[in-house]
Amino acid sequence: MNLLLLEDRDFIDEHQVRLNGRRLAHMQAIQQVAVGDSLRVGRINGLMGQGEVTALEQDHAELRIQLDTPPPAKLPLTLLLAMPRPKMFRRILQHCATLGVPEIILLNSYRVEKSFWQTPFLQPDVIRENLLLGLEQARDTVLPRVRIEKRFKPFVEDSLPGLINNQLALVAHPGDYPACPRGIEEPLTLAIGPEGGWIPYEVEKLVEAGMQPVQLGERILRVETAVTALLARLY
Amino acid sequence: MNLLLLEDRDFIDEHQVRLNGRRLAHMQAIQQVAVGDSLRVGRINGLMGQGEVTALEQDHAELRIQLDTPPPAKLPLTLLLAMPRPKMFRRILQHCATLGVPEIILLNSYRVEKSFWQTPFLQPDVIRENLLLGLEQARDTVLPRVRIEKRFKPFVEDSLPGLINNQLALVAHPGDYPACPRGIEEPLTLAIGPEGGWIPYEVEKLVEAGMQPVQLGERILRVETAVTALLARLY
Repeated sequence: MNLLLLEDRDFIDEHQVRLNGRRLAHMQAIQQVAVGDSLRVGRINGLMGQGEVTALEQDHAELRIQLDTPPPAKLPLTLLLAMPRPKMFRRILQHCATLGVPEIILLNSYRVEKSFWQTPFLQPDVIRENLLLGLEQARDTVLPRVRIEKRFKPFVEDSLPGLINNQLALVAHPGDYPACPRGIEEPLTLAIGPEGGWIPYEVEKLVEAGMQPVQLGERILRVETAVTALLARLY
Repeated sequence: MNLLLLEDRDFIDEHQVRLNGRRLAHMQAIQQVAVGDSLRVGRINGLMGQGEVTALEQDHAELRIQLDTPPPAKLPLTLLLAMPRPKMFRRILQHCATLGVPEIILLNSYRVEKSFWQTPFLQPDVIRENLLLGLEQARDTVLPRVRIEKRFKPFVEDSLPGLINNQLALVAHPGDYPACPRGIEEPLTLAIGPEGGWIPYEVEKLVEAGMQPVQLGERILRVETAVTALLARLY
């Protein structure tokens, strides 16, 4: 935890918070803080700054809060991600939050198993919890937006062209395509397929909607690795 | 499993293998192969090609093997990695093998907890198993070399300068340093610190040995994410 994230409900007045649960346990067991210590804090979707521990009890801690620093900039990116296998999904949410993705759209695809959509990890509070873990790691406060699109064709035909809006849009896909560009600065919509990849029909539809296929070399990456590798190469 | 990796001991003659255990179970349960099916195969540290299933029993399978394709090129890289937390270590080994790292040196650092060196995951057969999982994913056959250096100072003073050999050498460290370069093609020694980073003394010693500090931006990445992000950006 590189940043202690504060919820609105933690504030007992403008400059004072009271914490318990996971964050209190972390302060006690891992950080071993004492009264008077100063911690990096951030208000969720708000500013970052310092928190001085003013009280530390078994069941709660209080901190005096000074917020003055804006969170780091997000990437100018919308990530269109075929719904990953649940055990990988949580880690991908964390990676995306850490790397600064502001918007994630979870999309169906032929190779997404139906059961993936049943995972409890898709519940809003579980998504939020994993995004917060990623933000804590990176020292960011702003929660990415996550949207669920379970119908590939209507989304790609009706919504995607407007979302791309004639700006750069890439679909990562192995094959005889140009190499993924490096070090871009412009807004981008990036589509990453499921394990096993998009099927040809899906690539076709994504291209019709305005996306250009690009590849990352002959090595086949796990989705989790591909997300990090693509973002690190692009920005 | 994108590639079925074959051990020397699997070969019952030059073009015939017999398999059991994990690989047999995977062929049966996940790939649901039948006699006559053709699979992508590769001989560990050797060529890749096709294997035709000639027999499939409860306790073994036999395949006729044709090997004709060289594995993909490795990155021209030596990765110097502060020994990671065990649960992350296995995944990092897999990522490194997938991404084409040919040589990994596991180094001690002030912030590496002593217990990390006690993990059973450091046993040669467990290291090999995790590297094989990464190779299977990427479709590569060549096992990365893994070396253990538990003493930071003697290694960095006595061995590292010869290893760098006046070629490019970078240490990834947050701070007021140049941004990590992109799309290089030359040989590189890259040092990645532990969770919490190298201590200043260690950065100093790495620089004395010939490394240049570079940074990846203000977001703090987990070691696992940093490994993938740095390699994807550099190559």
